[in-house]
Amino acid sequence: MNANPTLIVGSLAFDDLEMPSGTFDNVVGGAATYSSIAASLLCPVRLVGVVGKDFPGEVLDSLRARGVDTAGVERAEGRTFRWHGRYSADLSSRTTLDTQLNVFADFRPKIPTAFSTSPFVLLGNIHPALQLEVLAQIERPQLVIADTMNFWIAGEPKLLGEVLKKIDLLVINDEEARDLSGIHNLVKAAADIRRRGPKHLIIKRGEHGALFFDDAGVFFAPGYPLEDVVDPTGAGDSFAGGLIGYIARAKNLAHPTMRRAIYFGSALGSFCVEGIGPRRLLEVTRADLQKRMDAFMALVETGGPVELPE
Amino acid sequence: MNANPTLIVGSLAFDDLEMPSGTFDNVVGGAATYSSIAASLLCPVRLVGVVGKDFPGEVLDSLRARGVDTAGVERAEGRTFRWHGRYSADLSSRTTLDTQLNVFADFRPKIPTAFSTSPFVLLGNIHPALQLEVLAQIERPQLVIADTMNFWIAGEPKLLGEVLKKIDLLVINDEEARDLSGIHNLVKAAADIRRRGPKHLIIKRGEHGALFFDDAGVFFAPGYPLEDVVDPTGAGDSFAGGLIGYIARAKNLAHPTMRRAIYFGSALGSFCVEGIGPRRLLEVTRADLQKRMDAFMALVETGGPVELPE
Repeated sequence: MNANPTLIVGSLAFDDLEMPSGTFDNVVGGAATYSSIAASLLCPVRLVGVVGKDFPGEVLDSLRARGVDTAGVERAEGRTFRWHGRYSADLSSRTTLDTQLNVFADFRPKIPTAFSTSPFVLLGNIHPALQLEVLAQIERPQLVIADTMNFWIAGEPKLLGEVLKKIDLLVINDEEARDLSGIHNLVKAAADIRRRGPKHLIIKRGEHGALFFDDAGVFFAPGYPLEDVVDPTGAGDSFAGGLIGYIARAKNLAHPTMRRAIYFGSALGSFCVEGIGPRRLLEVTRADLQKRMDAFMALVETGGPVELPE
Repeated sequence: MNANPTLIVGSLAFDDLEMPSGTFDNVVGGAATYSSIAASLLCPVRLVGVVGKDFPGEVLDSLRARGVDTAGVERAEGRTFRWHGRYSADLSSRTTLDTQLNVFADFRPKIPTAFSTSPFVLLGNIHPALQLEVLAQIERPQLVIADTMNFWIAGEPKLLGEVLKKIDLLVINDEEARDLSGIHNLVKAAADIRRRGPKHLIIKRGEHGALFFDDAGVFFAPGYPLEDVVDPTGAGDSFAGGLIGYIARAKNLAHPTMRRAIYFGSALGSFCVEGIGPRRLLEVTRADLQKRMDAFMALVETGGPVELPE
């Protein structure tokens, strides 16, 4: 595949999901898993994370079959990170019932030498100290994308501030943007966050789409409207994977590339939510993705600049 | 102005607004007021409604100066309809503290003969029986747009059902679409609502934009992201006014016209929220509108169909 390799660092997990449609235990999950599956449709992926002795070798085999280099996935003594959550009847919110860090508690990312020159890097939502450790182990990439969450925004503001200075694109949701900046209005919040380091910022709004901010201004892409949403788990991580995968494939960071990358991320997020866990995402082919992108572009097509009819 | 006239029927009111920025009493409001101000930037407007003895003649003068024919605005004995509301600190929700129907309680729309052949009609959110009375008094227009609300959806389902059979485009928000259809998923809810009558449906999602459904499929337009939102009152009515005003000016109902009309509606809604009451909307010129539309189109420009780079 004629695309640059992308380094993805983050969690691999088991999820126990209580959905309106039923209960699903031991679903393979984790942010880095979803991001890797999505990105691997677009570029070679180098995955760094940790699993326990209980993680099925077949899952790693299936990732390798998709072009994911799992040389950075450490298998540690103990059990894999596990998340137990319950979704509301309309899937619009979820409650964490239990989090077992297990082997993830002592995770220190070790970047294989062969991965240290990866031109594109996605830092999943892990402790900012670990995000910094990853960056210390690699040569300056063309693009570093990072995710974070309220837990680190509130608990590790200093370290997170260091991370912000070293990344190119931060991908967070609207609530996180408001917490990080202390500003409710998202346009103002974005300006504040960009002053702290990242030249580019994406604020995700779930099914409502995503806002992109850079020096050229603001860009907005909607969510793809689906008839059947089955499981939102991993949608944001699939978005991030699709985003960086498209950029790695396009091999440039021009503003139009970023706009299209956001649509590819949204398209992959929309596939993700169509099945329990990563089930649907794993089935998607490049042809499926192109077809959804065509439908997506038709959905938003305006016909270009609009002038008032006289 | 080379545009078809639009008949707008609905409320004229006084609003007492408790905003995070302060308290504003006796603000001129009402759905038909906002819709008329917005539409009058794009087409001649014929307004039908009722005010009390306390409604300032200068307000009607200023509407007339904008090309609004107020021959259908009845001045009845008593006081004008009044709404008293309080907005949350982030303006995302509001509570009704008091509603005084006053002269609106006995309102029966009387369409002046000169208005009865209006090619475009906007039925504001009034009792469905009154919406039907309006339609009974006019020749079949090219396009009838109607608004409604949860109060009528729950309380007058039969009459509302009759209205739905006689209109071309229903404009409601997501909560109303869910209540009307009894279906949470908006794509499915839209299909259900369109089966009840209106060939075209717009589901508004406030700052998150609007979805448009017709036989050609789905279209999505975002809200225009603003740095300073002052007062959301009237934004939806300004949207509806801009929507029908653009269609009346374009003089066709083709799908691309509808897409552009939705952007014009959103642009006018975005001006509306920049000031208390209709203050900002009243200042806006056609040149301001064109400028915002240019910025809006730049915000969503994708560059057309996107193909995967090889």
